[in-house]
Amino acid sequence: MTTQGKVTVDLSVSLDGFSAGLGQSEDRPFGADGGDGWGSKLHAWAEDAEEMRLQLEMLGQTKAFIMGRNMFGPVRGEWDRPWNGWWGDNPPYHGPVFVLTHHAREPQVMEGGTTFYFVTDGIESAFKQAREAADGGNISIHGGATTVNQYLAAGLIDELRLRIVPITLGAGTRLFDGVGQLDLEQVESRDAGSFMHVTYRVLS
Amino acid sequence: MTTQGKVTVDLSVSLDGFSAGLGQSEDRPFGADGGDGWGSKLHAWAEDAEEMRLQLEMLGQTKAFIMGRNMFGPVRGEWDRPWNGWWGDNPPYHGPVFVLTHHAREPQVMEGGTTFYFVTDGIESAFKQAREAADGGNISIHGGATTVNQYLAAGLIDELRLRIVPITLGAGTRLFDGVGQLDLEQVESRDAGSFMHVTYRVLS
Ligand SMILES: NC(=O)c1ccc[n+]([C@@H]2O[C@H](COP(=O)([O-])OP(=O)(O)OC[C@H]3O[C@@H](n4cnc5c(N)ncnc54)[C@H](OP(=O)(O)O)[C@@H]3O)[C@@H](O)[C@H]2O)c1
Ligand SMILES: NC(=O)c1ccc[n+]([C@@H]2O[C@H](COP(=O)([O-])OP(=O)(O)OC[C@H]3O[C@@H](n4cnc5c(N)ncnc54)[C@H](OP(=O)(O)O)[C@@H]3O)[C@@H](O)[C@H]2O)c1
Repeated sequence: MTTQGKVTVDLSVSLDGFSAGLGQSEDRPFGADGGDGWGSKLHAWAEDAEEMRLQLEMLGQTKAFIMGRNMFGPVRGEWDRPWNGWWGDNPPYHGPVFVLTHHAREPQVMEGGTTFYFVTDGIESAFKQAREAADGGNISIHGGATTVNQYLAAGLIDELRLRIVPITLGAGTRLFDGVGQLDLEQVESRDAGSFMHVTYRVLS
Repeated sequence: MTTQGKVTVDLSVSLDGFSAGLGQSEDRPFGADGGDGWGSKLHAWAEDAEEMRLQLEMLGQTKAFIMGRNMFGPVRGEWDRPWNGWWGDNPPYHGPVFVLTHHAREPQVMEGGTTFYFVTDGIESAFKQAREAADGGNISIHGGATTVNQYLAAGLIDELRLRIVPITLGAGTRLFDGVGQLDLEQVESRDAGSFMHVTYRVLS
């Protein structure tokens, strides 16, 4: 038996639990969250140098990624216009990224080792492919909440890292929606001044 | 003009935002939250000595309290059986407590300076009475979430102290329900090991 890496989640959430506001678009990747475009309030942590360092460290320790097609981009329904993600020609993943969607598409090879694979046969299939690709390394269930909630409900997440941002949104995509009762263990916290970063281990 | 005290909230919430589970009863004051009676998981902070000290300090700085009748007790509808709160003959408030309800009842004088007043004409009336009684001192909007949410929506809260407990409940009474968009400022945090205690100033 080979050792299996950790399955982690890393999300920013508003104090009322949303990881995106309503009305996501190409100009406003996080939807209506009181900010503007990449000046999104949920994404403001990216201006914190230590937080960015932690984020890059986490990405470096991760060997495969799973995300929903809404996190991948603003194209909905058929892939009727060119879209290769928000991150330019050389995305920060440097490994396989499995994108959940109901709309089949050929794999998209990027620079720097990132390849986007489009998975149309569900979360278990994406998980199995990510496990194989990670080869004992960590997997990140990378977002958004619709995707994370399915993996939480399936009991497949080991660790949840949350940046808790001091805003409420009132509407949007909500972490834990439909997940039910979980017991977690608080394992680490960091007061970043303008937000909290808290890490939880999922117990059951 | 007299100086006005702060209006504070002090609540324990699950990671998915609930301050009580479903099915509150006399044996289970916090409803179904995975714990048992006063062994409630939302209430487990009370076993932390430093947290208890902070709580008593906060109570001591508070001159008037407002709570919903569900926080006051498990009696619903008419006051058809004797009930003077969960806290015995000498409740920890030592001042006026304004209980919001649609069911009129005479004031209930307790030992140690606590009197429960039952307010049937709404949150603004209770607030006005609490301001007068506090005479420039702090007011606590003491819970539950149904009551706190009304005061948040009305823009009457200055400070929100949350104990964020590492469980999810999936159902219950939710803090921020119906409140919409708020901007807050994170002013203080305490990692209590098994939960986080974070204080926010409400900006708008
Ligand atoms: N706050 C943060 O840290 C953070 C992190 C990541 C993302 N975000 C934000 O979150 C938003 C996106 O999150 P989201 O929750 O709306 O969506 P998402 O999880 O990124 O994507 C959902 C979509 O993925 C596809 N999908 C998901 N599960 C599937 C399954 N089991 N089988 C087949 N397809 C499946 C479906 O698309 P189709 O049916 O259309 O193919 C579904 O509509 C964006 O605004 C993004 O910017 C925030
Ligand atoms: N986690 C924590 O830190 C914490 C703190 C406090 C309480 N709790 C828990 O929270 C639960 C109670 O909270 P809750 O949100 O269910 O209820 P609540 O806010 O304590 O009480 C709601 C009730 O108060 C009355 N009320 C509220 N607003 C009113 C208004 N504007 N006018 C007239 N009456 C009004 C109504 O009762 P009637 O119409 O029946 O009169 C309403 O059903 C309990 O399980 C308690 O143990 C938890």
